[in-house]
Amino acid sequence: MSLLVVGSVAFDSVKTPYGSVDRVLAGAGTYFALAASFFTDVRVVAVVGDDFTAAEEKVFLDRGIDITGIAHAKGKSFFWAGEYGENVNEAKTLDTQLGVFADFKPQIPEKFKKTEYVFLANIDPVLQVNVRKQVNGAKFVGGDTMNYWINGSRPQLAEMLRVVDALLINDTEAKMLAQDFSLVRAAQKVLAMGPKALVIKHGEYGATVFFQDGAFGIGRHPFRAPTLPIEKVTDPTGAGDCFAGGFMGYISSQAELTREVFKRAMFYGGVMGSFAVEDFGPARLLKLTRPEIEERYKIFRELTHIE
Amino acid sequence: MSLLVVGSVAFDSVKTPYGSVDRVLAGAGTYFALAASFFTDVRVVAVVGDDFTAAEEKVFLDRGIDITGIAHAKGKSFFWAGEYGENVNEAKTLDTQLGVFADFKPQIPEKFKKTEYVFLANIDPVLQVNVRKQVNGAKFVGGDTMNYWINGSRPQLAEMLRVVDALLINDTEAKMLAQDFSLVRAAQKVLAMGPKALVIKHGEYGATVFFQDGAFGIGRHPFRAPTLPIEKVTDPTGAGDCFAGGFMGYISSQAELTREVFKRAMFYGGVMGSFAVEDFGPARLLKLTRPEIEERYKIFRELTHIE
Repeated sequence: MSLLVVGSVAFDSVKTPYGSVDRVLAGAGTYFALAASFFTDVRVVAVVGDDFTAAEEKVFLDRGIDITGIAHAKGKSFFWAGEYGENVNEAKTLDTQLGVFADFKPQIPEKFKKTEYVFLANIDPVLQVNVRKQVNGAKFVGGDTMNYWINGSRPQLAEMLRVVDALLINDTEAKMLAQDFSLVRAAQKVLAMGPKALVIKHGEYGATVFFQDGAFGIGRHPFRAPTLPIEKVTDPTGAGDCFAGGFMGYISSQAELTREVFKRAMFYGGVMGSFAVEDFGPARLLKLTRPEIEERYKIFRELTHIE
Repeated sequence: MSLLVVGSVAFDSVKTPYGSVDRVLAGAGTYFALAASFFTDVRVVAVVGDDFTAAEEKVFLDRGIDITGIAHAKGKSFFWAGEYGENVNEAKTLDTQLGVFADFKPQIPEKFKKTEYVFLANIDPVLQVNVRKQVNGAKFVGGDTMNYWINGSRPQLAEMLRVVDALLINDTEAKMLAQDFSLVRAAQKVLAMGPKALVIKHGEYGATVFFQDGAFGIGRHPFRAPTLPIEKVTDPTGAGDCFAGGFMGYISSQAELTREVFKRAMFYGGVMGSFAVEDFGPARLLKLTRPEIEERYKIFRELTHIE
């Protein structure tokens, strides 16, 4: 099965306690696509500028990712510069230049409109809703958002929440969206806004999925997947997007969405996020192999498995 | 098997967003003993003042806890008053009165000196080391500490770390003790200080145990137990002590310390901590039954179980 992602393809300059990189290929769409490409056929819809060259194209093509949906526009690609201190959960933004992304109006190519699995990465909820309308054939749609839209575009976000099957956000975003400091109550409030499943990412502690009653014929009790505690978080950028890529990639690789498939998808999400942070930018993903993924999946499973 | 705990038996006044209680029976020794009493025979060594009456004695006796090691002194019992805001992980201390606890010099009654399982709750590490010397027959000794001792009594704490088998602390304490912001590296550094196992409690995210290589013949890979996300944390006081009580209580109830026993102990710790927070003070523990514990254990297991 195929998986379509709509999101940013960008360049990042990142500084962490372990070093720094300048203008590396990045963006939620990129991280998501690379992570998902280990599980399924991935199609990216995005916009890039003149700085996106054959070298960047090759990164996607080497992973078998379809980039015919990446539009080229005059100007620069989205650029972000940030710095992480000792607390890897908090990035300090040093610079943001929207570039061609400012006028991004995602057009889904005709041949992609029947894609069964779709992920709406973190962009303006107005655009997310617009994309959702273009992919009528979608069977399962995931989405992401962030504090910027939660605070500034609540009505638009409310509409987006009604058209996604699964929302993937972190603890802070969930609590902010629900305006409730209890994670469980926040989850219930967010589910009442629309999504059948809410995946809350806890960073180094893993992630928990909460379901609407009876969602997908499998939902009721929450499920929590741990992550392997990582000794050296070289660069946390993209970990959440890689979680989403592993999660959606695994689901779209399976014939049926059973509860076991959903659980395993949560583990694969954690696995992909844990690889992402081991090197700067997408470097670790470009060297990664499926056997390494399976090996870590086993370690994660063993990490919490009791008879 | 029997389990001995040395720690505070105190009174707390607590305010949370859900209400408040005044001078309820509390203290690490109390919480630990009550939680552990569902698994094994518990003996408490502590000191109390004139305010500790037959009513408080009855709380312990009703749970079959041996309180012949609780010394009575002239004055008031240890008293703590605190308040929790929306963030249940941070208590604001309003008042602390050491009372008779200021002169606490734990004397282990002769008949308890051969106790096989011992827990050194959070008290001055000098006293912890002194107790450890008195219980020569101990097979497995657990211990707790806090930022106050980590910052102010590092040499004394170093000695304590050399005489415990398992140290149970939270993320902040582990990072502070190791002076390292990476949890995994912090764990390795703390293990190098002495304990064969380090259990790091993550609050609502569960707990992870790290082992010295080959510890107890079972140690190598870490193990993580989740907690059930709790909708309403009425009063977080004592959750960590109840985790320790469930953990040590379960271990001391088993004939052998296998890896499976250790894992289950981690789950039982989380279960007992999750009950503790459901009501003010020890109220929930006093109504608790073993079938309820088993039921929640199953839910916790299912929460992360994949085939």
